[in-house]
Amino acid sequence: MKKFLDEDFLLETSTALELYHDFASKMPILDYHNHLPPAEIAENKQFNNITEIWLKGDHYKWRAMRSNGVDENDITGSADDYTKFKVWAATVPYTMRNPLYHWTHLELKKPFGITTLLDGSSAEEIYHEANERLKSLPVHSILEYFSVKALCTTDDPADDLHYHAQIKQSDFQIKVLPAFRPDKSMAVENPETYNSYIDRLAASANITISTYQQLLDALKQRHDFFHEAGCRVSDHGLETMYAEDFTLAQLEESFKTIRNGNQLSPAAIRQFKSATLHFICLWNADRQWAQQFHIGALRNNNTRLLNRLGADAGIDSMGDWPVAQAMAAFFDRLDKEERLAKTIIYNNNPADNALYATMIGNFQDGKTPGKIQFGSGWWFLDQKDGMEEQMNVLSNMGLLSRFIGMTTDSRSFLSWPRHEYFRRILCNLIGNDVENGLLPNDIKWLGKMVQDISYNNAKQYFNL
Amino acid sequence: MKKFLDEDFLLETSTALELYHDFASKMPILDYHNHLPPAEIAENKQFNNITEIWLKGDHYKWRAMRSNGVDENDITGSADDYTKFKVWAATVPYTMRNPLYHWTHLELKKPFGITTLLDGSSAEEIYHEANERLKSLPVHSILEYFSVKALCTTDDPADDLHYHAQIKQSDFQIKVLPAFRPDKSMAVENPETYNSYIDRLAASANITISTYQQLLDALKQRHDFFHEAGCRVSDHGLETMYAEDFTLAQLEESFKTIRNGNQLSPAAIRQFKSATLHFICLWNADRQWAQQFHIGALRNNNTRLLNRLGADAGIDSMGDWPVAQAMAAFFDRLDKEERLAKTIIYNNNPADNALYATMIGNFQDGKTPGKIQFGSGWWFLDQKDGMEEQMNVLSNMGLLSRFIGMTTDSRSFLSWPRHEYFRRILCNLIGNDVENGLLPNDIKWLGKMVQDISYNNAKQYFNL
Amino acid sequence: MKKFLDEDFLLETSTALELYHDFASKMPILDYHNHLPPAEIAENKQFNNITEIWLKGDHYKWRAMRSNGVDENDITGSADDYTKFKVWAATVPYTMRNPLYHWTHLELKKPFGITTLLDGSSAEEIYHEANERLKSLPVHSILEYFSVKALCTTDDPADDLHYHAQIKQSDFQIKVLPAFRPDKSMAVENPETYNSYIDRLAASANITISTYQQLLDALKQRHDFFHEAGCRVSDHGLETMYAEDFTLAQLEESFKTIRNGNQLSPAAIRQFKSATLHFICLWNADRQWAQQFHIGALRNNNTRLLNRLGADAGIDSMGDWPVAQAMAAFFDRLDKEERLAKTIIYNNNPADNALYATMIGNFQDGKTPGKIQFGSGWWFLDQKDGMEEQMNVLSNMGLLSRFIGMTTDSRSFLSWPRHEYFRRILCNLIGNDVENGLLPNDIKWLGKMVQDISYNNAKQYFNL
Repeated sequence: MKKFLDEDFLLETSTALELYHDFASKMPILDYHNHLPPAEIAENKQFNNITEIWLKGDHYKWRAMRSNGVDENDITGSADDYTKFKVWAATVPYTMRNPLYHWTHLELKKPFGITTLLDGSSAEEIYHEANERLKSLPVHSILEYFSVKALCTTDDPADDLHYHAQIKQSDFQIKVLPAFRPDKSMAVENPETYNSYIDRLAASANITISTYQQLLDALKQRHDFFHEAGCRVSDHGLETMYAEDFTLAQLEESFKTIRNGNQLSPAAIRQFKSATLHFICLWNADRQWAQQFHIGALRNNNTRLLNRLGADAGIDSMGDWPVAQAMAAFFDRLDKEERLAKTIIYNNNPADNALYATMIGNFQDGKTPGKIQFGSGWWFLDQKDGMEEQMNVLSNMGLLSRFIGMTTDSRSFLSWPRHEYFRRILCNLIGNDVENGLLPNDIKWLGKMVQDISYNNAKQYFNL
Repeated sequence: MKKFLDEDFLLETSTALELYHDFASKMPILDYHNHLPPAEIAENKQFNNITEIWLKGDHYKWRAMRSNGVDENDITGSADDYTKFKVWAATVPYTMRNPLYHWTHLELKKPFGITTLLDGSSAEEIYHEANERLKSLPVHSILEYFSVKALCTTDDPADDLHYHAQIKQSDFQIKVLPAFRPDKSMAVENPETYNSYIDRLAASANITISTYQQLLDALKQRHDFFHEAGCRVSDHGLETMYAEDFTLAQLEESFKTIRNGNQLSPAAIRQFKSATLHFICLWNADRQWAQQFHIGALRNNNTRLLNRLGADAGIDSMGDWPVAQAMAAFFDRLDKEERLAKTIIYNNNPADNALYATMIGNFQDGKTPGKIQFGSGWWFLDQKDGMEEQMNVLSNMGLLSRFIGMTTDSRSFLSWPRHEYFRRILCNLIGNDVENGLLPNDIKWLGKMVQDISYNNAKQYFNL
Repeated sequence: MKKFLDEDFLLETSTALELYHDFASKMPILDYHNHLPPAEIAENKQFNNITEIWLKGDHYKWRAMRSNGVDENDITGSADDYTKFKVWAATVPYTMRNPLYHWTHLELKKPFGITTLLDGSSAEEIYHEANERLKSLPVHSILEYFSVKALCTTDDPADDLHYHAQIKQSDFQIKVLPAFRPDKSMAVENPETYNSYIDRLAASANITISTYQQLLDALKQRHDFFHEAGCRVSDHGLETMYAEDFTLAQLEESFKTIRNGNQLSPAAIRQFKSATLHFICLWNADRQWAQQFHIGALRNNNTRLLNRLGADAGIDSMGDWPVAQAMAAFFDRLDKEERLAKTIIYNNNPADNALYATMIGNFQDGKTPGKIQFGSGWWFLDQKDGMEEQMNVLSNMGLLSRFIGMTTDSRSFLSWPRHEYFRRILCNLIGNDVENGLLPNDIKWLGKMVQDISYNNAKQYFNL
């Protein structure tokens, strides 16, 4: 019987042990997509207690507690921090087999050094021990503890990036770069919130936005500004892909409709999004950025909790929109102009894993190895089975060796052990194959391969 | 090499053995959804031979025999019972790797005590041995043999539940409760059969049904009547979910159209179903019932056999309708009114497993642990791989510990070993995790967990 | 640790070893669907070097090289054959975990007898060794080396099949039969290419085609002609299924529109395809042919490469069209007339595996065992995981024992080891089940079963 969560966690064969301990574990971290707040990095935030750093923004844990019958007040409400920690602790044993059970104990182990299992009875001791340790773990120390070399946050085009500037000007050694996330510039479903956003964007770009062309000008101005700030990646959250035909005249007409506060038809909305995304992707290609598409989440399904907590409240799930034809058409339109940038597609619904893994093969260009990527297990798929499935499907239908690997996509400064989790799973998959005679026992090559997937491929790919 | 179907069947680790033999196997059965005929329970039916109890209603076996080239006459036709048994016996070896192979031998073992493998050569001996044993196995004895504590049948609102009343008044100790299945009250596609059903419903409720409001009144009357009879669960068979807007005026208009024998448009049909289901779900919430949705079957695909045998003839398969958006909207509409009842969603197509497992998390209310459930592997998924996938996906995306576990959904009095099958698979999954260091070796907690999933969770959930 | 690719490759248990070495490996090959060029069989082609026979038509390898950053010129362009071999060799280590890695070394082993691993450093030696061995391996010798008994190519109705006639008249012992692939006769989306095809068909059938009825007459004439030539199977490549209603008048109207060079509406296109496919399927039933449907590929997604290389250039991926309802309706319409032929459905997107596996059960007729087949892992699914999933799903939802097993679907004369690959995987699955006590240890029956699936079932099914 293997011991739970010891040094050899998830490593079932001697080959896996060797690949992980001698190769993968030695690599630093490049976290090319997350939702960390630049302000807290800039100010090197010191958290007061583990509830603040660990539970306050984590909708995965909220969701688990709700499923376990914990009252909302103790989760996101007015309960005090210690109470919130205790209800989470009492829930932890009920999360067995959920990734939260592994994450929880990996995160207590690193950076807190706590190996006691968390439950109702250990809650008090662990709360105090973690809080004590936290005093010497401001944000910068955490990032250094985990050998993070570079990370990319997620930023709105209207953002002035002054926290990023502040970080750049400081003597902090870890690269912290923005990513360009222009979702709001395409969210035309609601003219009211859209127009208020456009006004913000106009102010930020210092460009009057009365026409669609001016919208593009403003976005391009921000794209340039982000590039100057070191940004090398755009990011897009979409329910599904779209690739409608358009003319500029039609877009101007649509834009006028919205700016007048009127609703577009569903067809006009799709057209507007198709076009605007297309233009941004052209700029991405011109700037040699990478572009990421997070596709398929069905968001904000619970109006009661949405009204109470806002978005990202643990009330999202998987959609089942058709995606293949529009995705192929969208990329082909860019490829035809030879302006398809490096591209990563992330899939929310595992039923589409194989679709995504085969889609990327259509647009590899024979110049950049692994130019089009099937992104690592995302959101609900960011767990052992999900990662294994993503890597197995990618292996079967593409080149695992060219995979740029893991990114946390996290809002928390404690999620770094997920890179370790990913690497152990990767090494274990390959170790099993060697053990079963499915791969030759060529440790040198396989060691290089896991190091590439852990770090080198991403480093070369993003060229930050 | 493990022996086939011995005491340790499906249990691959010492932890699994301990979990099953010391914990799960000791629990009684609560079968909260099946299609057993109340009449046969009321009369404590004595079957004449194994063909009658085992083959007559079992469309899984019919389907396998057809695939094996057995003539329909020997399956469902005029062949004598012994012939029917023999053609099944000869098919059995061809079902290896199909769940029928396991079910067949589990069912021969319990309650018949037969451990000889069934095939053409053993057919005669087994036929006589089983028939002999069957003499002391009337329905009540079978239910007692398997420690069934309670079961819920599936009943039409127009049913007078007199068999249930008869059972209740008898000294039979096992709880036999009805479930409210109002599918026919929404089956407006065919005005002729619909109107004839509505007349039956009207008679049963003793309410004239000329208007939609009167339809609701009659259904509500039956809902109340079922509640009085001990019913605590409604059940709904749907191709996909729908959540259309409606006004009562529109529904009255639609109802008038149908009652006049005219066809509704597809949009009006969806609206009618959305509304009627919504109203019934409100009553479910008010009565604190649980509601079950069996979603995604594509039924009665073979007209030739449908005309010969009617529905449930083994000619059904999986649909691939989109379901996510409408499902979220349907539940949200109830949740917004704080009238979303305890809910179980069953998925017919495994491509949607993850979608279902994430959907339930949107609507957990922090009051009832596991209030929204992703139901156990259903129909084609009621087999080892299907159960494992359902439990793995549920584990990864929700709380397995709060799962209400197995129900047979069966038409047969011999399907009880499926609870054993399920429990062995559950214990084996957890045992493997412990063995591989994925879970801590905390037998006490894990033993409680498998007992909860085997029985306690369902007992608490349905509160029958 | 098992050795890579030795005699016991993929066989993990003693039962698997016995099943493969004593049973499966002894069976000849019946390859009932491939894309081998009849001309090269007729002329017993002698290839000049391994690049010619191995890389020139293989879009799987092209795709992998593009993903690996190899320039198109070295893949499909003007680079010399040795260069092309070298770039492939250098890519091979990067394909680890992709089926190409296994296929490559299986194909070097048989028929070339080369067991050195291919990579950049071994490229030169292997190139020369393979070329030397190739001198004694003209096409006929390769087919004989692999004990191929019969194979079916894929042919257009307008083809005069003279190479097939030539092979038949020669003393070559292996049966080489045509298959009827009438896709072009339904490709009405593009009137220009369609009309030019219809003219070719008219010439081949020696029938003027001005009306839809004449189109049917011409196709029927070719169907008869193919039957005379030994054809016993039709093959159909479809994005999804369709089963629209039609009248002959409507079809005549549509046909007139196309023949006048005008575009049909999407609805008329679906109707045209539904009807034409229906008629051909009736003839298939009347002739007792088998019919194959390859469903769900999204083709030619990269216009840049399509313009440069034409179709089948490695720029295809998976679609996600709904398919269940139309598929059931299409088969039911034929079944109602008792003219549903033996049918094999191949699935491109693994999300639909279970849908396909349950669909076949609807139309089994109790006369021909395994009459409706869920075809072996196709295209992207033709790999270890894909084959295992297809066989597991088929096992769970149908009868694996009646499965007609593997076919290469290949354009290459070197793909025969895929039958070995398939058989090893099959034996391993069953071996694991026996080892784990999931199946009884009845080697005689299981040995028969793997021999049936490897060869006997297909032999009986196609009755060539």
